[in-house]
Amino acid sequence: MAKAKKYRLAQIVERFGGEIIGDPRTPISQVATLENAARQHIGFLSHGKYRKQLAGTRAGAVILGRADSGLTQLPRIVCDDPYLYFAQVSALFNPPQAIKPGVHRTAVVERGTRIPASASIGAGAYVGRGVKLGKGVVIGAGCYLGDAVEIGAASRLHAHVTVYAGCRLGRRALVHSGAVIGADGFGIALDQDTWRKIPQAGGVLIGDDVEIGANTCIDRGALDDTVVEDGVKLDNLIQIGHNVRVGAHTAIAGCTGIAGSTRIGKHCMIGGAAAIVGHLDIADRVVIHAATVVTKSIRKAGTYGGHPAEDSRSWARHMALLHNMDSLRERLRSMEQRLSTREKKV
Amino acid sequence: MAKAKKYRLAQIVERFGGEIIGDPRTPISQVATLENAARQHIGFLSHGKYRKQLAGTRAGAVILGRADSGLTQLPRIVCDDPYLYFAQVSALFNPPQAIKPGVHRTAVVERGTRIPASASIGAGAYVGRGVKLGKGVVIGAGCYLGDAVEIGAASRLHAHVTVYAGCRLGRRALVHSGAVIGADGFGIALDQDTWRKIPQAGGVLIGDDVEIGANTCIDRGALDDTVVEDGVKLDNLIQIGHNVRVGAHTAIAGCTGIAGSTRIGKHCMIGGAAAIVGHLDIADRVVIHAATVVTKSIRKAGTYGGHPAEDSRSWARHMALLHNMDSLRERLRSMEQRLSTREKKV
Amino acid sequence: MAKAKKYRLAQIVERFGGEIIGDPRTPISQVATLENAARQHIGFLSHGKYRKQLAGTRAGAVILGRADSGLTQLPRIVCDDPYLYFAQVSALFNPPQAIKPGVHRTAVVERGTRIPASASIGAGAYVGRGVKLGKGVVIGAGCYLGDAVEIGAASRLHAHVTVYAGCRLGRRALVHSGAVIGADGFGIALDQDTWRKIPQAGGVLIGDDVEIGANTCIDRGALDDTVVEDGVKLDNLIQIGHNVRVGAHTAIAGCTGIAGSTRIGKHCMIGGAAAIVGHLDIADRVVIHAATVVTKSIRKAGTYGGHPAEDSRSWARHMALLHNMDSLRERLRSMEQRLSTREKKV
Repeated sequence: MAKAKKYRLAQIVERFGGEIIGDPRTPISQVATLENAARQHIGFLSHGKYRKQLAGTRAGAVILGRADSGLTQLPRIVCDDPYLYFAQVSALFNPPQAIKPGVHRTAVVERGTRIPASASIGAGAYVGRGVKLGKGVVIGAGCYLGDAVEIGAASRLHAHVTVYAGCRLGRRALVHSGAVIGADGFGIALDQDTWRKIPQAGGVLIGDDVEIGANTCIDRGALDDTVVEDGVKLDNLIQIGHNVRVGAHTAIAGCTGIAGSTRIGKHCMIGGAAAIVGHLDIADRVVIHAATVVTKSIRKAGTYGGHPAEDSRSWARHMALLHNMDSLRERLRSMEQRLSTREKKV
Repeated sequence: MAKAKKYRLAQIVERFGGEIIGDPRTPISQVATLENAARQHIGFLSHGKYRKQLAGTRAGAVILGRADSGLTQLPRIVCDDPYLYFAQVSALFNPPQAIKPGVHRTAVVERGTRIPASASIGAGAYVGRGVKLGKGVVIGAGCYLGDAVEIGAASRLHAHVTVYAGCRLGRRALVHSGAVIGADGFGIALDQDTWRKIPQAGGVLIGDDVEIGANTCIDRGALDDTVVEDGVKLDNLIQIGHNVRVGAHTAIAGCTGIAGSTRIGKHCMIGGAAAIVGHLDIADRVVIHAATVVTKSIRKAGTYGGHPAEDSRSWARHMALLHNMDSLRERLRSMEQRLSTREKKV
Repeated sequence: MAKAKKYRLAQIVERFGGEIIGDPRTPISQVATLENAARQHIGFLSHGKYRKQLAGTRAGAVILGRADSGLTQLPRIVCDDPYLYFAQVSALFNPPQAIKPGVHRTAVVERGTRIPASASIGAGAYVGRGVKLGKGVVIGAGCYLGDAVEIGAASRLHAHVTVYAGCRLGRRALVHSGAVIGADGFGIALDQDTWRKIPQAGGVLIGDDVEIGANTCIDRGALDDTVVEDGVKLDNLIQIGHNVRVGAHTAIAGCTGIAGSTRIGKHCMIGGAAAIVGHLDIADRVVIHAATVVTKSIRKAGTYGGHPAEDSRSWARHMALLHNMDSLRERLRSMEQRLSTREKKV
């Protein structure tokens, strides 16, 4: 990471808002966790679990929500959303590393592709024919860009990213190592007892400001494109099947799989290790718990969980009932006895 | 994709059978979805969900099942299995891209390996000693083939595939980027409180006509080989543990994991995100739903689901009962009251 | 694998203990499964399922537990833990392949990095600035080591491993192809309706004797490091989120995901395809079944399973009850009738 500058609390609040309690001249040079912070650091409290760490922290200052503002005597910034505030302060202290432009001598660039002077192509990277790269694009070492790939300005691909021919990424993409964009979708048709491959003739279209995690796979479409809209954030080891559409600003945690032709709405939050079967429609603003198995379309915003998925209130009730079956069985047994007793009596 | 030729409906039916309703001279230059087809395209209807798109399609012709043949006035091909028919027509219009033979100047080929004149070795690929490649093999950019690897004729490895030493793939394999074939199986033995590694001295043996998805892993065996038989189709991000055997013509969807020494039968269909524990036997022609957790051997063909897996009828009944427990509890409560009333009376 | 030497049973027992029944001069040149062993091989029986193979084996000798020592007439080694014994014997017959030291002519080593004479850097590998490599380190073809990476002595990275800048691995690490160490954790904060990235300024710290499977991802921390302690064994396709800590000598099977900031204890065993949500504490010596979904901290050593996880006895009881609900419903129905009958009578 690049070396950080120093800022005083007053300068931070000037940029990001919030209210200072304590000395506004307190100098800060980095963000840190409450547990490991030192005097020159600003810590933050955004998760109740870490409240007990506040007492012992050696941080020079702290970012807090309004409800927690009285929990410490340290110089502090009080704000509405301490996690978001921390995100902004952390970005201030940890600007992205500048990458030197230029094409590494071991990179291979095919004919018909022009590399902008502001772009960087890493060691051993391969750039196919007719590839279009925007300004300031960074292609990491060992990346593979097939023919006619397009990557928008200011995007960064870390080492070892694979983009198959014809796939298009928007601006400011951030793609992590091992991600594979545009491999064939899993399209096969049964022909008597063997499988016949269906050509995957569509592509992948990825909007602006998309982050794609390590070893995540986004398959090309069978006919139309697989689409990932603007602002989508994908964690590691995610599978996006062919012709899926992921709506703008949806975030998906790691190890989740979305089968072919399913459409995910905008502003959804999908927990890790979820499985969503194919050909479904998921509405906007749907929240799906980790490890949920979604087998039917979800038409309404809300929170869902379970295997198979149901709205989270029903799911919680069903789980409680299941865990309560011992007592149900006991009540049943006791009634059977009471009833038998009565039947003998009369 | 290569530029497609034009065919008239009559020429298509001549190749693949089926019956034309409408003008047999209708010219077609590509397949397309009903939603996005234009006049020069042929669409298809194979999933009930998309029936409503038939009315609005701008396709020049449509492939349909017999039951649906009256749903449109467009020129159409009526056949038994429109999905399979579409697969064939799509393969006609989307032939695989021809790859120029030759060894890229940046590829590394170790001594003792002869590259057939018809083969293509991409930029930065590494081919170890004593590797055997069949005619027309395509090794993508940045692939790694360890010593003594064997790959059958007409196989294609996309960019960034890793094949460890000694592993063997059959003919017409199609392997996608990031796949890892022959890494060590997870073999460890507890020695008091620490783990001792068990050498993974077996290999991987893959039959003909196998497709392997992006970032899928097939581990080498501990002693004997891990075996993937002819015609198996594996989607992305699948884990095949050491000494697993996957029977011929079985298809496995993405994110599924199969633990060591399990044997999967022939002609099975395994849904995505399934988990199958080790040392099991799964019979031929078993269908496993997405996200199923298989903890016991399955001895009989059939359809299975759930966590843990059971035959899909039992599973459906158990799920229905679980979702019906509210009413069971109500009935129990009501009976308790009625019984109490009676007990007080007498 | 390197060519194996021959050992007599007596020589094996001299090294690893155990008791010989039969001819101690029996010569052995390799380990094998009972099913596929030949006369020069020693087989082993460690899993009840394979007992029936003992009768038909053509092995020259067998490793057995005390309870099974009478099941064969073959020369045999009787010991407490035949699986561990087999592990040791297999290591004897399958020593790791020696790798020739040196830097491949196509590798790229940036300034400020010194490669020890005993180290090996494979074809097309990239080694950034200020990287520190211990003696005898093997970096496979096409690996990527970012700036300031540290890798301890005798570690081996197979082809195509990615280690981001600043991450540190201990001694004797074994890392398989496609593994990604140090990609950004999934840190995003909601800013009105869009996601703001949180810089991932921490690193990854990996202890000694750690094995990391193919395509497994270990994210860098947001502020502090993600930590994998000594002796941890990770299978393929595992996701370790940012700021997770995995305790020493814990083993995790494939396809498991562990979300951010969760702490796993020492000597745990976590089955495949498990999902563990973020910010939890898992105690030492916890055993988690395959496909378990852990949603709460686990404070006590023991065995856990289910979705959501509970101790395995409760889980088994709940599963049994669920599968027994048919009969509960029947008993309920029968009582309702009996009660109705009584109510009519009186």
